[in-house]
Amino acid sequence: MAGTSYSGVELLRILQRHPEAVVTSVTGRRSAGKGLNEVFPHLATLDLTITEELADGVDVVFSALPRGAGAEKVAPLLEAGIRVVDIGTDFRLKDPEEYRSWYGADHPCPQYLEKAVYGLTELNRREVASAQLVANPGCYPTAAILALAPAVEAGIIEPDIVIDAKSGVSGAGQKVASEYMFSEVNESLRAYALDGHYHLPEMTQELGRLDSAGVSITFVPHLVPMTRGVLATCYAALRESEVGSGDAARARVREVYGGFYEDEPFVRVVDSPPATKQTLGNNVCAVYPTVDVRTNRLIVVSCIDNLVKGAAGQAVQNMNLMFGLPEDEGLKELALYP
Amino acid sequence: MAGTSYSGVELLRILQRHPEAVVTSVTGRRSAGKGLNEVFPHLATLDLTITEELADGVDVVFSALPRGAGAEKVAPLLEAGIRVVDIGTDFRLKDPEEYRSWYGADHPCPQYLEKAVYGLTELNRREVASAQLVANPGCYPTAAILALAPAVEAGIIEPDIVIDAKSGVSGAGQKVASEYMFSEVNESLRAYALDGHYHLPEMTQELGRLDSAGVSITFVPHLVPMTRGVLATCYAALRESEVGSGDAARARVREVYGGFYEDEPFVRVVDSPPATKQTLGNNVCAVYPTVDVRTNRLIVVSCIDNLVKGAAGQAVQNMNLMFGLPEDEGLKELALYP
Amino acid sequence: MAGTSYSGVELLRILQRHPEAVVTSVTGRRSAGKGLNEVFPHLATLDLTITEELADGVDVVFSALPRGAGAEKVAPLLEAGIRVVDIGTDFRLKDPEEYRSWYGADHPCPQYLEKAVYGLTELNRREVASAQLVANPGCYPTAAILALAPAVEAGIIEPDIVIDAKSGVSGAGQKVASEYMFSEVNESLRAYALDGHYHLPEMTQELGRLDSAGVSITFVPHLVPMTRGVLATCYAALRESEVGSGDAARARVREVYGGFYEDEPFVRVVDSPPATKQTLGNNVCAVYPTVDVRTNRLIVVSCIDNLVKGAAGQAVQNMNLMFGLPEDEGLKELALYP
Amino acid sequence: MAGTSYSGVELLRILQRHPEAVVTSVTGRRSAGKGLNEVFPHLATLDLTITEELADGVDVVFSALPRGAGAEKVAPLLEAGIRVVDIGTDFRLKDPEEYRSWYGADHPCPQYLEKAVYGLTELNRREVASAQLVANPGCYPTAAILALAPAVEAGIIEPDIVIDAKSGVSGAGQKVASEYMFSEVNESLRAYALDGHYHLPEMTQELGRLDSAGVSITFVPHLVPMTRGVLATCYAALRESEVGSGDAARARVREVYGGFYEDEPFVRVVDSPPATKQTLGNNVCAVYPTVDVRTNRLIVVSCIDNLVKGAAGQAVQNMNLMFGLPEDEGLKELALYP
Repeated sequence: MAGTSYSGVELLRILQRHPEAVVTSVTGRRSAGKGLNEVFPHLATLDLTITEELADGVDVVFSALPRGAGAEKVAPLLEAGIRVVDIGTDFRLKDPEEYRSWYGADHPCPQYLEKAVYGLTELNRREVASAQLVANPGCYPTAAILALAPAVEAGIIEPDIVIDAKSGVSGAGQKVASEYMFSEVNESLRAYALDGHYHLPEMTQELGRLDSAGVSITFVPHLVPMTRGVLATCYAALRESEVGSGDAARARVREVYGGFYEDEPFVRVVDSPPATKQTLGNNVCAVYPTVDVRTNRLIVVSCIDNLVKGAAGQAVQNMNLMFGLPEDEGLKELALYP
Repeated sequence: MAGTSYSGVELLRILQRHPEAVVTSVTGRRSAGKGLNEVFPHLATLDLTITEELADGVDVVFSALPRGAGAEKVAPLLEAGIRVVDIGTDFRLKDPEEYRSWYGADHPCPQYLEKAVYGLTELNRREVASAQLVANPGCYPTAAILALAPAVEAGIIEPDIVIDAKSGVSGAGQKVASEYMFSEVNESLRAYALDGHYHLPEMTQELGRLDSAGVSITFVPHLVPMTRGVLATCYAALRESEVGSGDAARARVREVYGGFYEDEPFVRVVDSPPATKQTLGNNVCAVYPTVDVRTNRLIVVSCIDNLVKGAAGQAVQNMNLMFGLPEDEGLKELALYP
Repeated sequence: MAGTSYSGVELLRILQRHPEAVVTSVTGRRSAGKGLNEVFPHLATLDLTITEELADGVDVVFSALPRGAGAEKVAPLLEAGIRVVDIGTDFRLKDPEEYRSWYGADHPCPQYLEKAVYGLTELNRREVASAQLVANPGCYPTAAILALAPAVEAGIIEPDIVIDAKSGVSGAGQKVASEYMFSEVNESLRAYALDGHYHLPEMTQELGRLDSAGVSITFVPHLVPMTRGVLATCYAALRESEVGSGDAARARVREVYGGFYEDEPFVRVVDSPPATKQTLGNNVCAVYPTVDVRTNRLIVVSCIDNLVKGAAGQAVQNMNLMFGLPEDEGLKELALYP
Repeated sequence: MAGTSYSGVELLRILQRHPEAVVTSVTGRRSAGKGLNEVFPHLATLDLTITEELADGVDVVFSALPRGAGAEKVAPLLEAGIRVVDIGTDFRLKDPEEYRSWYGADHPCPQYLEKAVYGLTELNRREVASAQLVANPGCYPTAAILALAPAVEAGIIEPDIVIDAKSGVSGAGQKVASEYMFSEVNESLRAYALDGHYHLPEMTQELGRLDSAGVSITFVPHLVPMTRGVLATCYAALRESEVGSGDAARARVREVYGGFYEDEPFVRVVDSPPATKQTLGNNVCAVYPTVDVRTNRLIVVSCIDNLVKGAAGQAVQNMNLMFGLPEDEGLKELALYP
């Protein structure tokens, strides 16, 4: 496992209770040589030392490295035949041009882009199962795509979509910066990245695969004074020809969503607007589709724990598929409430 | 002053530093007979007793009463020629039908609806100055209408608007309910009122007055784990014929907003996305208009302190106008930061 | 299981992953007849209906009922030979007089007081194992007694102790009251119960059993703007004759604590002051003993998750002992961080 | 004014409403050359540019600089006859040895230590009025000394005192460090500086001046997940010979405190345990003295806003005295509630 980020720590929490997983190696640059307990006192029982390099003989590597560094570290692992779940951003976009336009640099190993499977498990389950390299989705795309996929695939909405998303602060990772200090964030709320957030092309790419005409998305993320949780509120005009209007539209929408997620272990189509707290610490995505009958607009609210379904939990879900394990192994935990 | 709500307490804080105002009477039903200090220890220095009825000889009454009760209490005051700023919801809608459809009851004194001035000061300054009865706007409408009025009036957007708004918990007032308990709200985020929030018709009514074709609004409010602050993120398609696209559109939009709010003492068109904390405790509304150049959609983010510009502060701003005082008297305070 | 309180919900979360436990019955008065998912949407997967009465054939009942009601409900269960872990306050005090003086009422079934075992597992492990009725300790006593027991038992401190404790709001349970509303608690901190908190006699009773001379305690609890977590900071004069002073005293103190908790699965004597977050969601009690060398005073900081080691987790720990199961079954979870 | 710290920003907020003060200069090293509005958007209306050096012709300088740097900057100002209120820590301790032992460095200009007046206004009002250099107290000492001064001066307690203090995160200033990041602090609580906090010698020095025998203090600070507010809970054995015990002791204690603070504009001896929120944004210190009648121990709870009475507000209070202005000029604001 590479990385001592929040996602990495969450991964340790999940793998620790996973009956088929043994963590043999935790890597990190700045903390190399330290015991895990020195950096994270609550992990004292794991008794692991952080190293700069991976141990030999691993079956799977979870990588949570910054843009660029991830690809460089992952390439030799792939050469060596090791399976990789990349929690970073390096293998999510299929198009190297798109990668360059968002990150301002060429992709270090574009030959792997086509090979990588975008690991939004519910959409790409079969491909994940046989993948060597899974690109684990970002937290915002996980919440937003799960909120919109049934409607896009069913063709019941116009392809012009607004996604207003809100995240707890852990979504920014462990970055030490003035803007994430407690006194700056607490009792405050703000929108950010209004010129374009790098999670937008993931959404456009994956939702676009569900509708040959593609989709057009306005995405605005917000920073909320809480640690965990992402909530996406999605808006799109309903096609009256497809769903009718009023109560009929509402019923049809629920039918579409209920069908789409019928057998999913982690996506719940809920009957009332969900709160992020209902997914705290577990791998659930709660989806609430409804209709604004005044304007015949679809509204879908979805929420996840950004560090679980939005990162480490989905990574384990993907690992389970890659190794033929039950998909929910290690992921059965109920939410921590309150 | 009628009401011992959060808005009422905030009003006391503002009026206490207002050189022209003397609070002679604070009314409240449940707390009648108690000293203000018994209910609110931090107000001990005001040395007032809560009474059931108003003192005689007042020049202006601020009323913050529940739906229905407000109208009933206010009517006799109006008969007696007293000026009233109603912080409640009873006089905001012009159309008695609309009132009934949202509140499920007939308006107790519809004859005053036409007479009442909707007290969003920036839009109705002249009417407020000569009003006997001002209907102080709700917190969401204040943030949303100020965010959208320049664009609607200039005709640069299509009339189909999405308003995704977020509020701190004090927006729900002092209502003691399970859903507002600390352990339920903290570390959680949720959307609510997806079937329609009673602040929607205020927005439709007031923005509709700026465009003869009217506007169509989808409005979704969210509850954020903070005490104060409302942030509205507003979305509408730009008319390319009016603003062009890309950087040109962005420049034109800023021109429209800059011009509209040029001389406003309390509305600031800001250069970067504002945080609610920048308005904590003061009467400012920060407005950030920008363009999603990928979709040529207008995005406007606005924020206020829901208890100040969204309630008590705007009420005092209106009072100042009604009595020919400087509009910012008692309202010059900087935001509390951090 | 009786009770739909926060402790009860936490118990469900723990028992759900306990390989030897099957929850057959959840009782509640106000919610009887409802599905668990209607009251707690995040528990939808448990598929249980809340009932007024317990199912037949249970092996153990967890009771989390208010003072008085708990004893009344529990008595017939005991008569029927069922084992009970009472998370309420009814069986913690041995002395019926003490009960009356704190609760202002006679104990409904004092014959069980002697029979009940005070379930602070680490101190009374053997008695718990053979008990029919375990009185699960309060959250404050759990943190405070574990912080002080080694020093009291070793006779290294004077018996005059100050316990300054701090709790998150869930410690007050699901009580809907103005003082626990988000807007009242958030961004605020206060001491309470300065005339005496009902957890004090638990501490005096249990610590007193470790020193024949008894102990004298000043206990002040505080309400902190967070949901979970109890932190106790304990102060007592060291006996120089027993521990010396300066570095020698510090070393001796750590020796005493290290020895006392050597084989404990859930108590960790840590090397730096612990944060409550290090125990979030798990059954750990972190204890940090140190010496103020300027005054030769022992300072011990301890922290727990009030709903886990301070309630549901310790209850399961006790159940495990009562049924001869491994003590940590169902309780191996790492803390949720961040 | 030197410094763009949280205390500095709070000072600007207070001075902006002070009828006798004009801020002519704001200095800062890293931000020199920037407009104040670029660093703090909410201060846009002040229209000041941050400079490296002070403007000429100032009457008083508020300095909020780090240890050592403060003394060096202040010395030439004093030479030039300018009055200075130092919000930093450089002039608080009288004894250069004590300074060295806490800060590990010699004082840069020890000749000013004797000259400086410790600006806890209520204790040293007369000296402040005629001082050229006022050392503004730390936030913890302000809360703790005001809590204990009446008891120490009256000789009613033993001189062995425990001060358990709790602070919001802004007390750490604007320091950008991992430990103050939102995700680390939120939903967590911890004690720190158990080996000795540099605010301890201030307390010992100032309380020691009230009792010829001196005092001995154990002081443990805690970090609380809120932005503003300090609450100190203080414990000391009462001298039964002086106050008796039980209700008599309680009455005598309140008499001592009531008398001591009788005419103070900013210290309130309150009837119930205060919450920090009751002092949010204003210069009040609420003091609640009571007696634990079981142990005849004095308990005093005090609270302040650390950035107001604990820093910028008290600095202005001192400035008012130094210039013969009404002591409460600019400081009459009520607390922001909720």
